[in-house]
Amino acid sequence: MKIIKIIEKSIPLKSNVSNAVINFSNHTVSLVALVTDQVRNGRPVVGLSFNSIGRYAQSGIIDQRMAPRLLAAKPESLLQTNGQLSAEKVLACSLQNEKPGGHGDRAHAASGLELAVWDLNAKLNDEPASVLIARHYAHIAYSPKVSVYAAGGYYYPDEQTGRLEAELKAYQALGFDRFKMKVGGATLAQDMKRIERAIAITGAGNKVAVDANGRFDLAQALAFGKALQDHELMWYEEAGDPLDFELNSLLAKEYPSALATGENLFSRQDVKNLALFGGARAGLDIFQMDPGLSYGVTEYARMLNELESRGFDRKFCYPHSGQLLGLHVVAGLGLGGCEVYPGVFQPLGGFGDQILIEQGAVKISDAAGFGFEEKANLIAEFKTLLS
Amino acid sequence: MKIIKIIEKSIPLKSNVSNAVINFSNHTVSLVALVTDQVRNGRPVVGLSFNSIGRYAQSGIIDQRMAPRLLAAKPESLLQTNGQLSAEKVLACSLQNEKPGGHGDRAHAASGLELAVWDLNAKLNDEPASVLIARHYAHIAYSPKVSVYAAGGYYYPDEQTGRLEAELKAYQALGFDRFKMKVGGATLAQDMKRIERAIAITGAGNKVAVDANGRFDLAQALAFGKALQDHELMWYEEAGDPLDFELNSLLAKEYPSALATGENLFSRQDVKNLALFGGARAGLDIFQMDPGLSYGVTEYARMLNELESRGFDRKFCYPHSGQLLGLHVVAGLGLGGCEVYPGVFQPLGGFGDQILIEQGAVKISDAAGFGFEEKANLIAEFKTLLS
Repeated sequence: MKIIKIIEKSIPLKSNVSNAVINFSNHTVSLVALVTDQVRNGRPVVGLSFNSIGRYAQSGIIDQRMAPRLLAAKPESLLQTNGQLSAEKVLACSLQNEKPGGHGDRAHAASGLELAVWDLNAKLNDEPASVLIARHYAHIAYSPKVSVYAAGGYYYPDEQTGRLEAELKAYQALGFDRFKMKVGGATLAQDMKRIERAIAITGAGNKVAVDANGRFDLAQALAFGKALQDHELMWYEEAGDPLDFELNSLLAKEYPSALATGENLFSRQDVKNLALFGGARAGLDIFQMDPGLSYGVTEYARMLNELESRGFDRKFCYPHSGQLLGLHVVAGLGLGGCEVYPGVFQPLGGFGDQILIEQGAVKISDAAGFGFEEKANLIAEFKTLLS
Repeated sequence: MKIIKIIEKSIPLKSNVSNAVINFSNHTVSLVALVTDQVRNGRPVVGLSFNSIGRYAQSGIIDQRMAPRLLAAKPESLLQTNGQLSAEKVLACSLQNEKPGGHGDRAHAASGLELAVWDLNAKLNDEPASVLIARHYAHIAYSPKVSVYAAGGYYYPDEQTGRLEAELKAYQALGFDRFKMKVGGATLAQDMKRIERAIAITGAGNKVAVDANGRFDLAQALAFGKALQDHELMWYEEAGDPLDFELNSLLAKEYPSALATGENLFSRQDVKNLALFGGARAGLDIFQMDPGLSYGVTEYARMLNELESRGFDRKFCYPHSGQLLGLHVVAGLGLGGCEVYPGVFQPLGGFGDQILIEQGAVKISDAAGFGFEEKANLIAEFKTLLS
């Protein structure tokens, strides 16, 4: 078995929303197709993937560095003992002659390639990627049911009174019972009003999470935490810079409820530093690393080893993502749950067209691979790669 | 004044050498030209730069994300009060709508653009970039003389007995008195023999530094340190993963002489973590962040603030680089010194063709900007961008 072609294409994200730090209107994502010499039902089997959402397409790194390495490798050097491609070996080959450190765009690029291997192998086996991941990592408590929450509550350019309420009620109508909203893009007083309006809809603070997207300095993070703390929210996310472990540890000393961070950490080593120096509290705080941005499932499993060896529980991992890749990794590795962006980030955001949210959970279908074929607007994009 | 065109071109590094981790034969670097509407002596003034050495060209990120942002910005939004381009504003604009964290390829891409502003402004002023940097940051103890050491001692595919000796003697003949060599690519016993051969040439351990390029785990790092320590070397560089602050701090407790690291940290925040959690010892350990890889001079000055606010001295900063960009930043900010790769990494490595090394130091010429025009093989490459 061998890779005969690697196709990458940058597509725009359809979203004109902002968090406290950035606007997404010019965001892009890399779609990736690994074309192999394998044929099933008379058609070549192709592994599909993309590099999550939020950190741009990686055409340059994939086309100029990683794809040439994979295509130059001896095909047998990329295989596991069962004759299929090895995600670990594909990742290692993608990173040949790359120096250590600097886990940013490179990690996002490698994710697209590594995850395509899981889609490919699951299609060869005619099983969901989640089932394959669970078996590969000997996760015996596999369930196709995944706890989800709706991420939204962005700042819109045309924000009007009642928009937030309407948005949250729409999520409830879709079957969600927990929500996340952006904060830090308005004054503390304005944001507290928005949070109280959200709690009025959900009925409880522990059904509302807030996300500052790394905007606050220490004093702001502490002040915001103090204003929040009586609400005992679901969590308070990315108060400060994602690499400011000192800030996170000082905030954890003051803020009594759950803190969440990690969506902007992209390697095992960065997660180790969060665990060692960031003041994370086992059994309370939430980890949000995104396998679609951080070298794929292979590195995610290493992150879990790092956390579990230090007393943390994988059920406190809720990957950033809101798309099919993340959904399958959560089920496959038995993580806590994942987010969904019901309204935005199309055609990447969300799950299959027929997947229903019931009481804040979804059930992965039996479709092979990541099930992109069950999401019409996404598979249409993938088809343009292969035509 | 405005930018009318941004040209980026990936060129290969001419080097078939290896350190303990990677081989450089397929490495590339981005050359960058900022073409403006300014004319001097009848010719358009162009800011030139590149993104250092060792972490690949960044064509994708520059062409698809950063250059479009700069060209779409209102020209006056990128200017300082004197009417010239502002390096700080150009950097901030390059990073518009980018999330925090993930300081890797993006940092290398931004460096190329930010540093081109310094070349441009220095050319408009007809002064060396180092002089402009010193004035901008009010570094009053400016001197054009920079302490340098020769970095080499790589593992070559055709390594022969006597090659290391011949290489170090050639550096001495060029005027160098201090050297750095790679370790970790052979057994401990073999590396110790190589180190002793090097000391036999230099006459003293404190004229030899060793660089493991992040290869060792903690046990290996400690064992290597124990074997080294009686030699009281110039420094022991990147023993472990550049982000493994725990390893660095445990090694610093055991190893009595200078440790060096930082060439694979690319942001102020990562440097803050090294200072806080990495066990760095003020007045002993060496910091090697490279302005050509880490968002340019603007972020480098922030790193210095971070270090100096914690009691470290900028004279202990020896940037990774070995090229003209690093040389000018060292002089402009008053750092300790910098490395040179006399034999390798052409056409980027090394300084102007007429620059002499005397007693381990070089003197920056009076050429405007970074002085690329005085390095024939490099300016020839830049000319292909503009033809």
